[in-house]
Amino acid sequence: MPELAYLNGEILPIDKAQVPIEDRGYQFGDAVYEFIASYNGRLFCLEEHLDRLERSLNGLFFPSVSREAVRKAVLTLFEKAEIQRAGIYIQISRGVSPRNHAFPDGVRPQIVMTIREVEEKPPELRKNGATAITLEDFRWGRCDLKTVQLLPNVLAKQKALAAGVFDAIFVSSEGVVREATSSNICIVADGTVITHPLTPQILPGITRKVVIDLCRELDIPVSERFFKTDALYGAEESFLTGTVTEVLPIVTIDRHRIGDGQVGPVTAKLHETLRQRSIA
Amino acid sequence: MPELAYLNGEILPIDKAQVPIEDRGYQFGDAVYEFIASYNGRLFCLEEHLDRLERSLNGLFFPSVSREAVRKAVLTLFEKAEIQRAGIYIQISRGVSPRNHAFPDGVRPQIVMTIREVEEKPPELRKNGATAITLEDFRWGRCDLKTVQLLPNVLAKQKALAAGVFDAIFVSSEGVVREATSSNICIVADGTVITHPLTPQILPGITRKVVIDLCRELDIPVSERFFKTDALYGAEESFLTGTVTEVLPIVTIDRHRIGDGQVGPVTAKLHETLRQRSIA
Repeated sequence: MPELAYLNGEILPIDKAQVPIEDRGYQFGDAVYEFIASYNGRLFCLEEHLDRLERSLNGLFFPSVSREAVRKAVLTLFEKAEIQRAGIYIQISRGVSPRNHAFPDGVRPQIVMTIREVEEKPPELRKNGATAITLEDFRWGRCDLKTVQLLPNVLAKQKALAAGVFDAIFVSSEGVVREATSSNICIVADGTVITHPLTPQILPGITRKVVIDLCRELDIPVSERFFKTDALYGAEESFLTGTVTEVLPIVTIDRHRIGDGQVGPVTAKLHETLRQRSIA
Repeated sequence: MPELAYLNGEILPIDKAQVPIEDRGYQFGDAVYEFIASYNGRLFCLEEHLDRLERSLNGLFFPSVSREAVRKAVLTLFEKAEIQRAGIYIQISRGVSPRNHAFPDGVRPQIVMTIREVEEKPPELRKNGATAITLEDFRWGRCDLKTVQLLPNVLAKQKALAAGVFDAIFVSSEGVVREATSSNICIVADGTVITHPLTPQILPGITRKVVIDLCRELDIPVSERFFKTDALYGAEESFLTGTVTEVLPIVTIDRHRIGDGQVGPVTAKLHETLRQRSIA
């Protein structure tokens, strides 16, 4: 079960894969990415990830990238690595060109991937729930595009770890709760699952969408609307959603206990159903 | 006069210089940079650039990087390239590590440089003045750190070019004028040079500082304070400041003619004095 990289058509060991220093991904963060996980040797939501990748590429006016070629590369890499529970990271940059802000002419997007075993969240975290802090959102205005403009997320995650908690949740200057550093957030209030609507301020999460669909199937009321920190602190339950995060309970935020401080029934039900669906 | 790269101690052709795909500069934009220019074979404001580089590194809690080692590398590269009018780009990333938001332990910052002939601004642009549009600032909240979180700057510059103008000027949602995509901005109002104060929203520009000092020497009143688009449109003069930009007049913004639409006397005087100082 080797860890492997893909680099513009070639498959090679990760530590052998290199890009030119004038790749625009390196000098401008002019690149988009996706992360796809497999369960029992099957990629989960591959087409949804390819959809979002296309959306990010179009949103940044990239030269055209063949969806079919990306899909084929993902499948080849996945087959070659023979990892049952794999995480495939895909990054596409605008291309390589002498440094200049404006889009360069005639460059070819660079396609890079890695495949590794997924690092599962610790079982205690899933069982007892995670902790978080909030902090003011200081990211750029297009968080709906899945780009490598991730330094604020890095700094926020590090701040959370330094504070002894699992993650940080970005909140607008007016108190609107956006999302965490690498996952969306939902609360349960009066039995309804509530999550931030799709705007440029949050990532259109694929697990977020799956969870909304599961709520509808399971007859759990669900609503995409803005909510503030007071609603977060006063929620019955709170959880993060993401590809590796899946559905992860958050039981303490800014030292406020959420609900009774235990993993709630809606969170537990959604995670269980999501796992069943993903390993099906 | 070869174009060269520097890569962690080695000097090599630019197109041979590569970094691992798991360099955090590539996957997170977790890197800082500087751009230093020479005039007549002498580097201008080298120590000021090294100061700011240190400030950016500290602001992001990077592992320690020897200022002396960076200076030595810059000077070696500069000597080796034998370019009279050189532009040296320096980029330092946090290091190389399997992708994970949190700061990795025990990694070594990666130091990359390129040296090339400076591409001068066209003489017509300096003579007749440049044009610009404004757009709402959608960058992240730490623009005072010189990082590669530059995608908004890229998109804004491209938008300006598509609109047939030279550059875009970022303006807050309340109308406060911040800076352009790769330079600071000043206006002249009632004979006073006015520029945005140093806050997390703008880069602490080195040419900005040199210009403020020149104003004081030349007995031109100068003030660091907030101003809005109405003051910008109604200014007597307006100009950008930056390492390659130097002092560049802006004569039309959002189709408003600034002053009489010609390069103003304060702008001309400051540019002339700056050039004298830099080639001295």
